[in-house]
Amino acid sequence: MTLPATREAALIARHFAPLATDPGAVGLTDDAAVVRPPPGHDLVVTTDAIAARIHFLDDPPDAIARKALRVNLSDLAAKGAAPFGYLLSLGLADGWTDDFLAGFAAGLAADQAEYGVSLLGGDTIRTVERLTVAVTAIGTLPAGTMVRRAGARPGDVLFVTGTIGDAALGVAMRYNPALAGRLGLAEPHRRHLAERNLLPQPRTGIAAALRTHARAALDVSDGLVGDAAKLSGGGARVVIDAAAVPLSEAGRRAIAADPALLKTVLTGGDDFEIVAAVPPDAAEPFAADCADAGVAVTAIGRIDAGDGVAIEGLPEGIDLGTGGFAHY
Amino acid sequence: MTLPATREAALIARHFAPLATDPGAVGLTDDAAVVRPPPGHDLVVTTDAIAARIHFLDDPPDAIARKALRVNLSDLAAKGAAPFGYLLSLGLADGWTDDFLAGFAAGLAADQAEYGVSLLGGDTIRTVERLTVAVTAIGTLPAGTMVRRAGARPGDVLFVTGTIGDAALGVAMRYNPALAGRLGLAEPHRRHLAERNLLPQPRTGIAAALRTHARAALDVSDGLVGDAAKLSGGGARVVIDAAAVPLSEAGRRAIAADPALLKTVLTGGDDFEIVAAVPPDAAEPFAADCADAGVAVTAIGRIDAGDGVAIEGLPEGIDLGTGGFAHY
Repeated sequence: MTLPATREAALIARHFAPLATDPGAVGLTDDAAVVRPPPGHDLVVTTDAIAARIHFLDDPPDAIARKALRVNLSDLAAKGAAPFGYLLSLGLADGWTDDFLAGFAAGLAADQAEYGVSLLGGDTIRTVERLTVAVTAIGTLPAGTMVRRAGARPGDVLFVTGTIGDAALGVAMRYNPALAGRLGLAEPHRRHLAERNLLPQPRTGIAAALRTHARAALDVSDGLVGDAAKLSGGGARVVIDAAAVPLSEAGRRAIAADPALLKTVLTGGDDFEIVAAVPPDAAEPFAADCADAGVAVTAIGRIDAGDGVAIEGLPEGIDLGTGGFAHY
Repeated sequence: MTLPATREAALIARHFAPLATDPGAVGLTDDAAVVRPPPGHDLVVTTDAIAARIHFLDDPPDAIARKALRVNLSDLAAKGAAPFGYLLSLGLADGWTDDFLAGFAAGLAADQAEYGVSLLGGDTIRTVERLTVAVTAIGTLPAGTMVRRAGARPGDVLFVTGTIGDAALGVAMRYNPALAGRLGLAEPHRRHLAERNLLPQPRTGIAAALRTHARAALDVSDGLVGDAAKLSGGGARVVIDAAAVPLSEAGRRAIAADPALLKTVLTGGDDFEIVAAVPPDAAEPFAADCADAGVAVTAIGRIDAGDGVAIEGLPEGIDLGTGGFAHY
């Protein structure tokens, strides 16, 4: 709407129209897309945005695009939805280049192939000082099966996918390059942590397992402790066994070198793993279905009667504070 | 995701949760919303964003919010869709206040009541230098009835709603306050033009008339001439009779004082009126249905064989240039 009309039309035709592979998107030649959910299915919608120098630094354009898309696909997965498509609102900082957009679109194309989604619509505006990328993602699931965030009940088992803390450690090292040296991390471990921050891994493979077995779930974006607490809608206490929280080899070595980093791991955020409360008799089949889907899950605690969140097994001297997460 | 978690939670609870009146939005206490289209219906999705000092100046917060929502509802109306809900991605510039957000939310609440929509989800990030507001709107319509942008055929009648050029004249006077004086416009006329820029009037009332009668339609955001041209998908020439284009009293007076402003009117943009191609035998019932809905429509031309767009009845010395529209 607000780049010169012909310039915007040209960049849409060149970079974005090829991504609009669903017929409902009409090749981005219309002002809206039509979406027809499969019979008996609901749509699940979510939106998340990222901005330059807040959520990403000087990352390659394809990584920025993929991150913007993946943080939304992660929300869909946690709700049990299969990804279907997305809309993109792109705010371009002055000085953008055609090469940048080509890389950005290539990143989207790669993830479209990986996750089976297509671009349904978009808007490109001028934001002058900094790039902003807002994505609205749409998924589908059988009617009435969306997995809610709250509703864990006493007795449920607390699970988390993948490993926790890598992205937060990656960010910490990026803002403080001396940290990696101080921790004595080898290059492959540094790279692992950096990549976990650069490119979230939405756990779309376990959407069906969550729908089938989980009582409540969400993805971990603001830190494991604070996000796990959200599983309780009241009348339930989320208990995390700190010693059971799954760590990568790099994460383990970082904490071994500086035990205080456990706080970064447990509260740092940007993990984009899924934390879920699963009724006790569903715990085994849930873990089995996740294994079948190729996604590691670990039991890290339980739901008790009560309220709030508790951490067991914390080493002496580690204080998690409020457990919240801020990009400031 | 990126204000301090507790601060974001507080502003959501205070300002935005009351707007999430649809049960599928779970009061914004989840990370996604569930949308179930009525049986036999499709969803229509569209996204448009606005940024401070690009799309709006120092406007009141409620007006900024309403504009961001309405430009999207305008797209839905042009596609024949009834508005259902929207997602909001809000980029806050540093220095935002709680009062600003209260005004912003009040604007949304007013428009939710007026257009029958509710907030389905959102994200709030920090954009430092300038406010950005990206909205994704969702509408519904009977399956297979979305009105396409292209597809006008020779013989069709060209219609437009409301009056054209007001918003562009309002913007011109805002950037050049001396202009209003030079044109000798009285205060009510100046105010009319300013308000037409401040607050678009999405023509949601004629969605059904468009579905029933129109061959092709879109809303006019980038200027009447350039947007009308999009009705042709090839093999059709859009012919506009400049003398027939409906003007407000203020617009008429502005052009009488300075005939060169006709270019601003025909190509200026931000009208958010709907231009449609209607088969000749549907022209009369279309106009009647629009009248029943309380929306003025005017026949402003026709579709011929050929290609592109032609303007008839232009006064001597008016050159429309490329007809595009830019916020630069």
